[in-house]
Amino acid sequence: MRGLSDFKLGDRFESPESLLEESEALAFARRFDPQAFHLDEAAARQSPFKGLAVSGWFTAAVCFRLIHDSGIDLRGGIIGQKIEDLQWLRPVRPGDRLRVQSTVVQIHRSAKSPHRGTLVFEHLAFNQVDEQVLLMRAHVLASDPPAQTTR
Amino acid sequence: MRGLSDFKLGDRFESPESLLEESEALAFARRFDPQAFHLDEAAARQSPFKGLAVSGWFTAAVCFRLIHDSGIDLRGGIIGQKIEDLQWLRPVRPGDRLRVQSTVVQIHRSAKSPHRGTLVFEHLAFNQVDEQVLLMRAHVLASDPPAQTTR
Repeated sequence: MRGLSDFKLGDRFESPESLLEESEALAFARRFDPQAFHLDEAAARQSPFKGLAVSGWFTAAVCFRLIHDSGIDLRGGIIGQKIEDLQWLRPVRPGDRLRVQSTVVQIHRSAKSPHRGTLVFEHLAFNQVDEQVLLMRAHVLASDPPAQTTR
Repeated sequence: MRGLSDFKLGDRFESPESLLEESEALAFARRFDPQAFHLDEAAARQSPFKGLAVSGWFTAAVCFRLIHDSGIDLRGGIIGQKIEDLQWLRPVRPGDRLRVQSTVVQIHRSAKSPHRGTLVFEHLAFNQVDEQVLLMRAHVLASDPPAQTTR
């Protein structure tokens, strides 16, 4: 497991790849984003997506799972404080395969509690033909183990 | 249905309320965010959440469904370009009931294609005791119907 001190600017993590199953994308859209361009091929062709596109929230959730599986292995888990930017750069289709590249772009150490801080990751998601489909800048909590008491 | 011209700054929409079922929150976490503080009560008590918390991506997805159901009724659907800020302000628990208040905070009309533009919404989610749990500033596409051709 990595603590705050184990990260440095520019550290990069590569996720495994995930195939977006159409059945799961449709079930997700029905529950969370029931719009025609996520559910109906014919309607989607008339939309700005020019074909069936998965919900952007499905893409974001899949990307988070990929980030989780990237081996960042943050002490205490990945706890997001906030996302300062989340962009859907291109439509994502059922059947696409996504992967995420995560880079440490900022490290903030708390002045009050120097064993705690925040890591800012830039996450870039790519599809199977290496087009960027999603960009996310995420602030996550990080900490070092409490200092050992001298006996 | 509302087009770009039908919105003005300060327009506000109130969503219905949604009860977060524990079974659904757990299934979502198992698939997209399998961390102990989202899955295991005992582990969650030792975490910064001090008890079982739903995944922030589950909260975001539920909030999007509430926004969809708020009667914004945007012509062409709600198509997000980007989120410029997404903050999880307080832990959300299984069994919480959420609602979302959405306010139009910016309106941008395209100089090149004036019937198209972007609406910026500030979405605030509240739990059943009216604590703010999520804040999101979202840019969505908006358009007016094409002008009628004079015959």
